[in-house]
Amino acid sequence: MKFEETIVAPATGNGGAIAVIRVSGAKAAEICDAVFVSPKGKTIGAAQGYTMLYGQIVNNGNTIDDVVAAIYKAPYSYTGENMIEISCHASKYIISQITQALCDNGARAAHAGEFTQRAFMNGKLDLAQAEAVADIIASHDKASHYIASQQMRGGYSEELKSLRDKLLRLVSLMELELDFGEEDVEFADRSEFISILNETEDKIKQLTRSFSYGNAIKEGIRVVIAGSPNVGKSTLLNALLKEERAIVSDIAGTTRDVIEDTLKIGGVDFRLTDTAGLRISDEQIEQMGIERTHKAVSQARILLLMFDIRTATKDLIDKQIAELAPNAEQKICILLNKADVHIEDENISLTQRQMLQTIYPRYTVITLSAKTGIGIESVRQFLEQAGELNDIYNQSVTVSNIRHYQALKRAEERLLAVRNGLESGLPTDLIVEDIRGMLGHLGEITGEITTDEILGQIFSTFCIGK
Amino acid sequence: MKFEETIVAPATGNGGAIAVIRVSGAKAAEICDAVFVSPKGKTIGAAQGYTMLYGQIVNNGNTIDDVVAAIYKAPYSYTGENMIEISCHASKYIISQITQALCDNGARAAHAGEFTQRAFMNGKLDLAQAEAVADIIASHDKASHYIASQQMRGGYSEELKSLRDKLLRLVSLMELELDFGEEDVEFADRSEFISILNETEDKIKQLTRSFSYGNAIKEGIRVVIAGSPNVGKSTLLNALLKEERAIVSDIAGTTRDVIEDTLKIGGVDFRLTDTAGLRISDEQIEQMGIERTHKAVSQARILLLMFDIRTATKDLIDKQIAELAPNAEQKICILLNKADVHIEDENISLTQRQMLQTIYPRYTVITLSAKTGIGIESVRQFLEQAGELNDIYNQSVTVSNIRHYQALKRAEERLLAVRNGLESGLPTDLIVEDIRGMLGHLGEITGEITTDEILGQIFSTFCIGK
Repeated sequence: MKFEETIVAPATGNGGAIAVIRVSGAKAAEICDAVFVSPKGKTIGAAQGYTMLYGQIVNNGNTIDDVVAAIYKAPYSYTGENMIEISCHASKYIISQITQALCDNGARAAHAGEFTQRAFMNGKLDLAQAEAVADIIASHDKASHYIASQQMRGGYSEELKSLRDKLLRLVSLMELELDFGEEDVEFADRSEFISILNETEDKIKQLTRSFSYGNAIKEGIRVVIAGSPNVGKSTLLNALLKEERAIVSDIAGTTRDVIEDTLKIGGVDFRLTDTAGLRISDEQIEQMGIERTHKAVSQARILLLMFDIRTATKDLIDKQIAELAPNAEQKICILLNKADVHIEDENISLTQRQMLQTIYPRYTVITLSAKTGIGIESVRQFLEQAGELNDIYNQSVTVSNIRHYQALKRAEERLLAVRNGLESGLPTDLIVEDIRGMLGHLGEITGEITTDEILGQIFSTFCIGK
Repeated sequence: MKFEETIVAPATGNGGAIAVIRVSGAKAAEICDAVFVSPKGKTIGAAQGYTMLYGQIVNNGNTIDDVVAAIYKAPYSYTGENMIEISCHASKYIISQITQALCDNGARAAHAGEFTQRAFMNGKLDLAQAEAVADIIASHDKASHYIASQQMRGGYSEELKSLRDKLLRLVSLMELELDFGEEDVEFADRSEFISILNETEDKIKQLTRSFSYGNAIKEGIRVVIAGSPNVGKSTLLNALLKEERAIVSDIAGTTRDVIEDTLKIGGVDFRLTDTAGLRISDEQIEQMGIERTHKAVSQARILLLMFDIRTATKDLIDKQIAELAPNAEQKICILLNKADVHIEDENISLTQRQMLQTIYPRYTVITLSAKTGIGIESVRQFLEQAGELNDIYNQSVTVSNIRHYQALKRAEERLLAVRNGLESGLPTDLIVEDIRGMLGHLGEITGEITTDEILGQIFSTFCIGK
């Protein structure tokens, strides 16, 4: 049992004023006491949990540093084991010397993620929560932090576990029926079973649906600005970013490459891509740029289709939409730019917007002047809405982990098989097998069912000291 | 009084698994409690010093992170003030949100070095010790760590303070004598005064002497490998470094630039510089390279002069030494390389070494073969000895800080003036002025005498959070 070993690793990053070295395991206090000298003669072993001791780390007569040892007693620690956190000066030399001194006295260097793996093994966290720890450390904005926090605090683990427990009870009863062979008894209430199956399916569907934006938030929401050359795409990008990111000129086709930048709205990263202009007209097609545009469009969740308000006819808009071939889930906004040149008659632009809005009820139509800033705020609001930011914060749980998503998808497949089996009157033993399969996939998420290989994969992506 | 403010800053480096945010000041507990929620309803304010509380940071209803708050009560903390260290997950977003939450509740962002400056102001450290804190964080090897540790633990501060106190008492008595004007009384025992003056001079001299290697250790000990082209300098460098750092070839003059690398011996960095070969012969001089060589030589503490054993005549050696113009303090080693080609007659090389050693008694002469590795260990031992590594660890105190060195030098000048004044029978009031001047310079080191400007300069070089 490798848990008998006491592990050590620095838990803080490079640089800074202080560093923290973590020690966890049954012998943590004993090993630390071998090198810790308190001026008052106190020992870590005799100290209470959740207290600190000031002292020095002394190895072979050499004083390495003045430190504070924070003491946690099993099971009231992150790992669930005895744990000591030594705060020292943030010198690489000191950190290596203290780590070495602890290893000389019986500890060993921890592997990546080993502290969290122990927390999981000791039941302090389930697997989904453990994975959320890595996500929370990597979180860089409000939304990714929110999703990781939800998951770390239990998130869907609890709900999945409760559904799994109910199904487990029912499947056990079904298995009992099988033992009675020909007697045709029914211990498991089929209507209760169907009801829990429905509940499970709803939950799985809700979770898999949430993955599309859970993942988008983790990676950023992709937005494409497309349109004919010289309609002002780069100017819009600059106006949104409030900095000169793209090169703006009056020469059509200035933007040849896909330019990407990140805009933060409501704590979410919107990854805006300005594309090579679409040339629907007779002009020569810049093939490379167009291909990149199509690729960018296919990956986007939101499309901003930009037109010069003076030339934005229904024909042109239809042509461009056909060209871009958006899918049904993409949120689309038609931007009528250069409204400033129309300023002499505000009614014209207003009428044009209303007319187009009537023609394209599923899209949002906005009149703007990227150059002067008129309407930029409306574009920002559209992005916020289209990004479904409210959904993120209202959602009790969001799946952002692809491993969980894949397990849910596999569970959904088996659930469908169960349902089909029930409808077509499949023998109970075959149905039971599909239920067991479904439960297995659900159990993978929280780690009730797992292999060393999966655990190894998960925790090896963690940093050392976590 | 700016100390009334409570300051906050992250104290750990970038990355890692956990981060520590430091809060110091009278209202530290109160400010932390405004955002800290313990599941058991405990408050930081009611907690004992040297204990920890688990809880969450919640700001405006948003849970930012699960944290552990480490509580220190004035004066038993690093700064001497109430101090809280909040351990959170090492996400930049979380760190900025917690810092922001604390600032929203009355803290302000700390300046660079402000925690240590407060420790100094509150008498927890003298100025020399405070400066050593920055040195200890920057220490990267055993020797620089040792020197910084000595200084942080009091080092010469105590000795200087004790001498200064004695001199202060005597100078006060002398000033009292002045009050009695013409009466020619002598309250201050002149023989005691001379004895303390001698003691002070000895101490100052010892400390200024230690600076040459104190500084060398902080910066690394510079070693130059010089010699004619193709004698094997790069090969020696590689053999010492045990890696292919310099390009080695048989073509004379391969090394055109100064190549530098660091070799660790006995915990000290030796900064080895391989120079463009000296061409004392008639061949065309590579002027640029030679100039760099001379510059490197002038900065070195140790010179390795390398020769091909087959051509190492007294004439050539004298010529090269004259060319390099080493100063009296530099440690010089004559390396007779390519001893492997002499292997057919070991006695020849042995005799040659002994002969040259007799001619140059102040230098060390070593026979070696950089190519095969014979004699490399002797070179290593020479470096260890020439670096005076034993002196470092035997020395009770070493000055490595140039500010201290300069203050000591100025104090020494004034001490000389005092001594001269006494000998030439200068009036007491003039002597007193020089003593006061000397005491001022000594007081600068430990910070008894200091200005805001000096403090600003010192602490602004610290990192934030220290």
